[in-house]
Amino acid sequence: MKFCSNCGSSDLKFEVPAGDNHLRQVCGNCAEIHYHNPKIITGCLPIWEGQVLLCRRAIEPRAGYWNVPAGFLEIGEAVEDGAMREVWEEAEAKVHILGLQSVFTFTNFYHVYLQFVGELVGGKFGVGEESLESRLFSEEEIPWEEIAFESSRFALRHYFEDKKKGNFKLHIGSI
Amino acid sequence: MKFCSNCGSSDLKFEVPAGDNHLRQVCGNCAEIHYHNPKIITGCLPIWEGQVLLCRRAIEPRAGYWNVPAGFLEIGEAVEDGAMREVWEEAEAKVHILGLQSVFTFTNFYHVYLQFVGELVGGKFGVGEESLESRLFSEEEIPWEEIAFESSRFALRHYFEDKKKGNFKLHIGSI
Repeated sequence: MKFCSNCGSSDLKFEVPAGDNHLRQVCGNCAEIHYHNPKIITGCLPIWEGQVLLCRRAIEPRAGYWNVPAGFLEIGEAVEDGAMREVWEEAEAKVHILGLQSVFTFTNFYHVYLQFVGELVGGKFGVGEESLESRLFSEEEIPWEEIAFESSRFALRHYFEDKKKGNFKLHIGSI
Repeated sequence: MKFCSNCGSSDLKFEVPAGDNHLRQVCGNCAEIHYHNPKIITGCLPIWEGQVLLCRRAIEPRAGYWNVPAGFLEIGEAVEDGAMREVWEEAEAKVHILGLQSVFTFTNFYHVYLQFVGELVGGKFGVGEESLESRLFSEEEIPWEEIAFESSRFALRHYFEDKKKGNFKLHIGSI
């Protein structure tokens, strides 16, 4: 933040407000305290006949890399609804959500991924505007070196491990 | 946002940017698009000998009402670390986290609660600065009409239901 969003002043400084224990951006003109918070990225790994659906990103960051369909949760949207919307936008696919599979925090980028697993309805999918390509992968086919984000590698690795054990769990991780 | 945080202009309007499908606050002076996102509230229900630890809030909103220890996730913090910090700040207690128990979206307030269940270490707790009081409750003692937020009622109701079944699960809800 370069200017105060409450009064337009450029007199912003970092200080610990009274009763707080974190540095906040505070306006020297109107005294507004600006809290900056992590953002939620919600997504879903679509499953079909033992394979998983990934999309190759058309947009930065990590354009050209494969990813679990996911994106920023919008205001007014429940996390599971956001996950279904993102699958539709990126892969033109519908999913029947089976459960939350991973919670992964990027502590340096202030992003928290909430990723579900869902059954791909009818096995049908397309290619959304933000994708170059969509396709189903078996475990052996996953292009591990071309996966866009660590959150997706985390979700995929645990999905296939759990599948072998026949015991699907929620996994929590961070980097 | 009343003034653009990028250039200080008051010429802000709502429009759907190219390639987007949501209304965003856009600056008419510098063209910056301002995305507003839901915030994460992370917490943990501490468990001790069949009872749960709740705190009575000293601060608004809902001052005087009982709540599961929880608060805003800070930037740079993993969700499970934030949950443990909040339990310390509100109840001066340490928890050994057992698992994520509920994900609850307030679609009108743009808050997503991620609530864990954890064992209260040593059964010890105090009263943090943001609390008036802390105490352990059995299911029969829960003051249902004096619970601060629907997210806490959701977590508590499911916790006691799961306890009876001997099968603890993750619950996803929204309002």
